[in-house]
Amino acid sequence: MSKHKVKIPPLPAGFRAAGTTCGIKTSGGPDMTLLASDQPCAAAGVFTKNRCLAAPILVNRRHLRDGSAQAIIINSGNANASTGKAGVNDALVMCQRTAQHLGCNRSQVLVASTGVIGVPLPMDKVTRGIDQLADKLGRSDQHVLAAARAIMTTDLVMKTATRAYTCGRSNIRITGLCKGSGMIAPNMATMLVFILTDAKLSAAALRQSLKQATAATFNRISVDQHTSPSDAVLVLANGMAGPTRQSKFVHALTDLCRDLAEQIVRDGEGATRLMRVIVRSARSEAEADRVGRAVVDSPLVKTALHGGDPNWGRIVTAAGYSGAVVNPDRMSLTLSPSTGPGICVFTHGQPVSLTSRQRVKLERIMSGPEVWVELSLGQGRAGATWLGCDLSRQYVAINADYTT
Amino acid sequence: MSKHKVKIPPLPAGFRAAGTTCGIKTSGGPDMTLLASDQPCAAAGVFTKNRCLAAPILVNRRHLRDGSAQAIIINSGNANASTGKAGVNDALVMCQRTAQHLGCNRSQVLVASTGVIGVPLPMDKVTRGIDQLADKLGRSDQHVLAAARAIMTTDLVMKTATRAYTCGRSNIRITGLCKGSGMIAPNMATMLVFILTDAKLSAAALRQSLKQATAATFNRISVDQHTSPSDAVLVLANGMAGPTRQSKFVHALTDLCRDLAEQIVRDGEGATRLMRVIVRSARSEAEADRVGRAVVDSPLVKTALHGGDPNWGRIVTAAGYSGAVVNPDRMSLTLSPSTGPGICVFTHGQPVSLTSRQRVKLERIMSGPEVWVELSLGQGRAGATWLGCDLSRQYVAINADYTT
Repeated sequence: MSKHKVKIPPLPAGFRAAGTTCGIKTSGGPDMTLLASDQPCAAAGVFTKNRCLAAPILVNRRHLRDGSAQAIIINSGNANASTGKAGVNDALVMCQRTAQHLGCNRSQVLVASTGVIGVPLPMDKVTRGIDQLADKLGRSDQHVLAAARAIMTTDLVMKTATRAYTCGRSNIRITGLCKGSGMIAPNMATMLVFILTDAKLSAAALRQSLKQATAATFNRISVDQHTSPSDAVLVLANGMAGPTRQSKFVHALTDLCRDLAEQIVRDGEGATRLMRVIVRSARSEAEADRVGRAVVDSPLVKTALHGGDPNWGRIVTAAGYSGAVVNPDRMSLTLSPSTGPGICVFTHGQPVSLTSRQRVKLERIMSGPEVWVELSLGQGRAGATWLGCDLSRQYVAINADYTT
Repeated sequence: MSKHKVKIPPLPAGFRAAGTTCGIKTSGGPDMTLLASDQPCAAAGVFTKNRCLAAPILVNRRHLRDGSAQAIIINSGNANASTGKAGVNDALVMCQRTAQHLGCNRSQVLVASTGVIGVPLPMDKVTRGIDQLADKLGRSDQHVLAAARAIMTTDLVMKTATRAYTCGRSNIRITGLCKGSGMIAPNMATMLVFILTDAKLSAAALRQSLKQATAATFNRISVDQHTSPSDAVLVLANGMAGPTRQSKFVHALTDLCRDLAEQIVRDGEGATRLMRVIVRSARSEAEADRVGRAVVDSPLVKTALHGGDPNWGRIVTAAGYSGAVVNPDRMSLTLSPSTGPGICVFTHGQPVSLTSRQRVKLERIMSGPEVWVELSLGQGRAGATWLGCDLSRQYVAINADYTT
């Protein structure tokens, strides 16, 4: 997909960042990142629903029990997907070493690892990397850039976003870095998101805000329906900009998460086209979610999107097998570009006969970089928006031929 | 996939078959089939779970209410996926015309259509086809061959199977024809299965037997997780060979269905390799099903299979996100060829270190035409076996580029 220009976001007040190269990646690319606050933060996390949990998830859950943290240490190039004692121990050593440098407790440090699985972390390199990072911490653009780069694995583009708003006398900033794209075995792609803010919130409010923001964003994207055992969204709020109303914070946080989630899908493995599936008039949000997910995950919808075909049959029948209550006689389907009006291709259980002018317009819509699939179920008042991408030969090549 | 030699199965006693070409397919290939019994039969059907139901499904449900039927009329090349009155009317006309020729009631005829969707059936051609079929009905190999051929759409191979057994003085035969492979838009692939038997069973016993047989076979295969609105399995039992114990019938019927289901997956669009996912020691059959389905549907497992990579991480984590209760520390995974012992690659939460000899053997297993994925969950005593296939560039080509 078209690469966007890299804009480096500023860090919120009281945060420092660093990225470094410690030799984990055989490519020699940057592979360790440290994000740290000058003072203790309210902290929260949302983790993978996979029942196979990587060691860092287990450690983060423990360290988040008191709702407080001060830093996040991350390595790329090698996951810590083992759930055995050795994996947990490696994750704890990473926290401990980081804590020593920052002068805080081990439990104040959160941790993430992404990359090859099935191989133990090279702890000597990792430890050396942490020592380097502690020396390099800073607040400049270059520090943020280095931090955002060193969390990438198969990502083709760096992914960051920032939002700022005013609440009373507080000038709040929220900045996020993330990685996620696909997998190249024995690597395992993982969605990792790190969000820093200088807003002042209680740990409970932060946790609740994060849950709300991720439900509508990161939980409604799918590149290939394969949930990693390491997925994590972590947020630190150090309060240095002052208090905020929670509603305003949730609004900005959700907007930021939506931006990052979209960047992940756009960078989906082999993706050439984005689909935004907007499900309307479902009986409940859960049913809208079922329909949205079935459509973005259907290999037949994904390949039709790749071929630029407005295949209403595949979309309507994906809704049909989603498990939600649908009735084709009440459904209507409109295909649109990301801006401007679309074309209704299916309504009342029947395809719409199009004029030749409409067919030309539809062809143009389907060959664009982003297609909006607007599906009205005619069952109720709930809705949901899902993001997905097409399925290309390139996806198969990336995920089948890595060993040759 | 490698094509198997076509063996033409005999018809059970008292059945006739015919296939013809009536001009529905633009290719000029055979496109209509009639299967008929000399006397009324006990009849049963199992249909798609898709909420979007094609007209023939609605008609068949109605015609099966009395548990009796005498014939099945089928056309390929053009589906009857419309759910409106027009579609239902077309399906009823097909039944009516067939009934006139056979001298039975319209409600004694079942109906199926498969092929392009969104286009009304060319009823003049269909009607002419039915007239031809009535003239051509016969019991020879050539009749069965013509009938089996004329139900094919994107299928590369003809799919038939037969089973015979003795029960008391009855020499029972069960013969099945089916089609199913994939989709090429605006076509919609559909799995259609027609089973004829001369066993004598009550309609209730037949219904129950079919339900049991399909649950373990056709409901445990997936080429691309997209359930068609036209899927149907129909069975006619004319009783001419005499009575049977139901348990013996269920056993033979299940075996026949397993055979046909496997033929469908082997002929899956773009498929080059079969995977048989054998889930063991799950807490319940429903949980074993969730795991089996998640594994066969994971694009990452399917592409790894295509590349011949023994990627245990993708298989184990697919089980992890299936929704079933799993714990990697209790799981073990063995990859095997269809005959002979396999290699355990994952156990107790960890990959197994393989000797170089084992690695060579594993490579040979993964490059074979069929890979058995044996996944033991260590949770209980239930199990399930799912069949799937790999995901190839050819699949993407077939389903993305049909319009160019």
